[in-house]
Amino acid sequence: MKLVIIGGVAGGATAAARARRLDEKAQIVIFERGEYVSFANCGLPYYVGQVIKERAELLVSTPETFKGKYNIDVRVQTDVLAIDRQAKRVRVRDLQTGQSFDEPYDKLILSPGAEPLRPPLPGVDLPGVFSLRSIPDSDRIKAVVDAGQAKTAVVIGGGFIGLEMADNLVERGLKVTLVEALDQLMPPLDREMAALAHQNARAKGVDLRLSTKITGFAQAQGGGLTVDTEGGGQITCDMAILSVGVRPENALAKAAGLELGPRGHILVNNALQTNDPDIYAVGDAVQIWDYVTGLPVAIALAGPANRQGRIAADNAMGRLSVYRGSLGTAVVKLFGQTIASTGPSQKFLAQNNVAHLVSYSHSANHATYYPGAETMLVKLIFAPSSGRVLGGQIVGGEGVDKRIDVLATAIRAGMSVFDLEELDLAYAPPFGSARDPINVAGMVAANIMRGDVKAVLPPAVAAMDPERDVLIDLRFKEELDEAATIPGSLHIPLPMLRAALPGLDKSKRYILYCAIGLRGYLGYRIMSQSGFEAVNLGGGYGLYTPWMS
Amino acid sequence: MKLVIIGGVAGGATAAARARRLDEKAQIVIFERGEYVSFANCGLPYYVGQVIKERAELLVSTPETFKGKYNIDVRVQTDVLAIDRQAKRVRVRDLQTGQSFDEPYDKLILSPGAEPLRPPLPGVDLPGVFSLRSIPDSDRIKAVVDAGQAKTAVVIGGGFIGLEMADNLVERGLKVTLVEALDQLMPPLDREMAALAHQNARAKGVDLRLSTKITGFAQAQGGGLTVDTEGGGQITCDMAILSVGVRPENALAKAAGLELGPRGHILVNNALQTNDPDIYAVGDAVQIWDYVTGLPVAIALAGPANRQGRIAADNAMGRLSVYRGSLGTAVVKLFGQTIASTGPSQKFLAQNNVAHLVSYSHSANHATYYPGAETMLVKLIFAPSSGRVLGGQIVGGEGVDKRIDVLATAIRAGMSVFDLEELDLAYAPPFGSARDPINVAGMVAANIMRGDVKAVLPPAVAAMDPERDVLIDLRFKEELDEAATIPGSLHIPLPMLRAALPGLDKSKRYILYCAIGLRGYLGYRIMSQSGFEAVNLGGGYGLYTPWMS
Repeated sequence: MKLVIIGGVAGGATAAARARRLDEKAQIVIFERGEYVSFANCGLPYYVGQVIKERAELLVSTPETFKGKYNIDVRVQTDVLAIDRQAKRVRVRDLQTGQSFDEPYDKLILSPGAEPLRPPLPGVDLPGVFSLRSIPDSDRIKAVVDAGQAKTAVVIGGGFIGLEMADNLVERGLKVTLVEALDQLMPPLDREMAALAHQNARAKGVDLRLSTKITGFAQAQGGGLTVDTEGGGQITCDMAILSVGVRPENALAKAAGLELGPRGHILVNNALQTNDPDIYAVGDAVQIWDYVTGLPVAIALAGPANRQGRIAADNAMGRLSVYRGSLGTAVVKLFGQTIASTGPSQKFLAQNNVAHLVSYSHSANHATYYPGAETMLVKLIFAPSSGRVLGGQIVGGEGVDKRIDVLATAIRAGMSVFDLEELDLAYAPPFGSARDPINVAGMVAANIMRGDVKAVLPPAVAAMDPERDVLIDLRFKEELDEAATIPGSLHIPLPMLRAALPGLDKSKRYILYCAIGLRGYLGYRIMSQSGFEAVNLGGGYGLYTPWMS
Repeated sequence: MKLVIIGGVAGGATAAARARRLDEKAQIVIFERGEYVSFANCGLPYYVGQVIKERAELLVSTPETFKGKYNIDVRVQTDVLAIDRQAKRVRVRDLQTGQSFDEPYDKLILSPGAEPLRPPLPGVDLPGVFSLRSIPDSDRIKAVVDAGQAKTAVVIGGGFIGLEMADNLVERGLKVTLVEALDQLMPPLDREMAALAHQNARAKGVDLRLSTKITGFAQAQGGGLTVDTEGGGQITCDMAILSVGVRPENALAKAAGLELGPRGHILVNNALQTNDPDIYAVGDAVQIWDYVTGLPVAIALAGPANRQGRIAADNAMGRLSVYRGSLGTAVVKLFGQTIASTGPSQKFLAQNNVAHLVSYSHSANHATYYPGAETMLVKLIFAPSSGRVLGGQIVGGEGVDKRIDVLATAIRAGMSVFDLEELDLAYAPPFGSARDPINVAGMVAANIMRGDVKAVLPPAVAAMDPERDVLIDLRFKEELDEAATIPGSLHIPLPMLRAALPGLDKSKRYILYCAIGLRGYLGYRIMSQSGFEAVNLGGGYGLYTPWMS
């Protein structure tokens, strides 16, 4: 049995190690085009940021450790030129010697990854314009920063890697302009959740330019670069990082006649097998499917790549193993915030006509009486028929990563919002609350499911009928002194609401709101049981402001 | 409809608020014997420790806020003397005026809590001997510490509250002796997991005395106390905190003829209804059941009390709602460690003859190349037939609380260890790894389930047959220079193992170990596929040392 693996990072490296554990006698070869095998690609922005101090830390494994632990033959700087499916061999070139040779295989696993897009813009190849995929890429960026040659940077692209890079450049003291063609950062999130990150980025001094397209680069007079934007804008900077997405490395697969998806990803079945039964494919280059809806997706994340590598190796070595799809669970630390999502976004569901409801809740990450509590906003997306949780997004500080993982587990288990209400999560003052943010999120959603509250969202305020709708701000006066209110609101602090009812007109519809949505809900319960038509503004003023931004 | 609630902390307060949301017109009264309603009882040790600076922070709600928000009549310092089930009224005494009166009810919810045990030992009522349940209790302890009158303290009892108290006293600069009658701290954990906490407590300067019974207290000559221990020992200290467990406050229920369990807890059905259909009971005073096994348990934790309060209110107000049992999920911060558990312990399952398997895995909380990674030890307990996860225990630092919540969610969902392997958890270098500790724990357990490894535990080393069994330490020489090895081991670093096989005797059984169990597993795969009988020492040397301590 001879297993050949193309690509030695994440999925490929995992597949090789797994294959060896399953078969001590197999011959296993990894061909990796780059200089390094199984390196810490997710750590590159943090190496540039000097959070990771030693370059050696990035080298998780070397060909020598692979040989020693796993008896695997790793050949770096070796490019696979072609797959001969008929003869079951690959044509390979040693990039150091320039020599080419054939390597036969019984089973082949493709883990080629994805390459950063470099749009063919004028000046894109100028020396100050960088991409970030490999260790040498990060060496180049870091050298410029270390030399003190860059005071300002433009990061182009608001995906996770671009953002981590921007965050680390800010940490290094650079003034960063962040340019994104869409109207939001982090496309996996819905816009109103990303809006919290927009507010925070701006508050931290980042020049954030959304809905802004780059048209080219030029050398600036007196050194540095100018970045041109659509409509004639120009940003001057010392360096630019291009991080506008990736495209699957599919050239080999395509030339070999393997089936590709509409966006060029390699197609696989749930054994991660391509249309050639002896060839498997994993990682950023493959099209898989969303765990919740079964719809096709491509997810460039290390976790799924690793799991896919393991499963492909199982199948290649003759052990049946099934990949069940991905939730695309992701988290990013960004300018002091933590931003995370799992499962399909609302916009993905809407685009694909999947029925869904949403709810929002603000909670502290731990007991508010214990110092250092930080508020997070939790968005739940759930099925109207059953309350099954479909997706979740959370923005806040400490503890966001915990709650997204609980949601990812719940979604994977097919749990409903009613299950979230009852989850028995760990509470001690430094870690949580007797009602965890996930319990609260479940309750808010379950209230909607059970009809215990009628909730509206911020656009309903803009769409108000002035003849019929009345806004009531239920917050205390002290709170209003610190925050704005929605113009035209009556102000009735919740404890005064019952007493105020006799003075209110029962022919109106009342839109109730508070800071986070809890008192709005309580107000709804009071008014709806007292013969008034009322709705609660979900997420309260704390969602309204970013939403409308 | 008139709802009377006895006890205004945690479950009682939650029940009242929930009842109001369900019925705006109901009359709702809370009788609370103490001075405060709905106070932060879990915060008391941190108030003593000055982590929580302001006493006012402990007062989550007041009778006034309950009145304003919920139109609930809260009467503090009011003792309920008797329940007249026939007449459906309670006899009440106002502790401030001394006057008694009757209060009728349609539905009654009991949330009396549990009181700290004060064993009738000589000297237990001396001024320096404290309990910790109420705000006044913590005021008394804090006054002594604040006045600088105490340099040394003895904390008696290794339950969560005693430990949090000990931790906070150490933070305040006291030299603490921790005395526990059992051979381990934290009875919900299994001993080998608690052993990691024992090692840490001792390393942090705590004088830990396990298997030590207190026999009495006396005034020491020249001030302070002496604490006498069985066998004639004596510990001198400035103050002693008794935290040896709680007993349910069942006097009212008992006198009213409500059914009690064998340890005195109020018995309820899954609507949290007592044997009187108009009386519900919640919180520390009730006997509920373990979610996994259905066996009866009593759990004194705030989270379950809150959820029970909500469900009891639902049922009392006529909305069917079912309590499904508790996992007893708990977490504690202790001398810089985080210690957590969920679901039944191994010893609980063994006592009740429930079949189970266990696995252990050590993992870093986040990418090891990102600074500050800390190792945690994860114990999984799972069903031999299906791999269903039954329980989990984790000891480590940052990120332990996250993983216990993921396990609690998985257990609640009925997931198996195979599901844990595949969980799609959030990864970015500051938060996790491409293989999260929970994925790893699932893999280690699944390897056992699938027969991919034969694992033994530390007692197998003590029980070795010297004629047949050979220990092999697979660690690198550099590791052995820093740590001890198990005496009598061969030393063959894993990368040398394949080459060493021809020199090994195939008639022996090899017990393989490394630092954490991963290389032992790799070694097992190599040897078992090469015709050797081998087993892996589960959890490696990192479990062996605390286990044998």
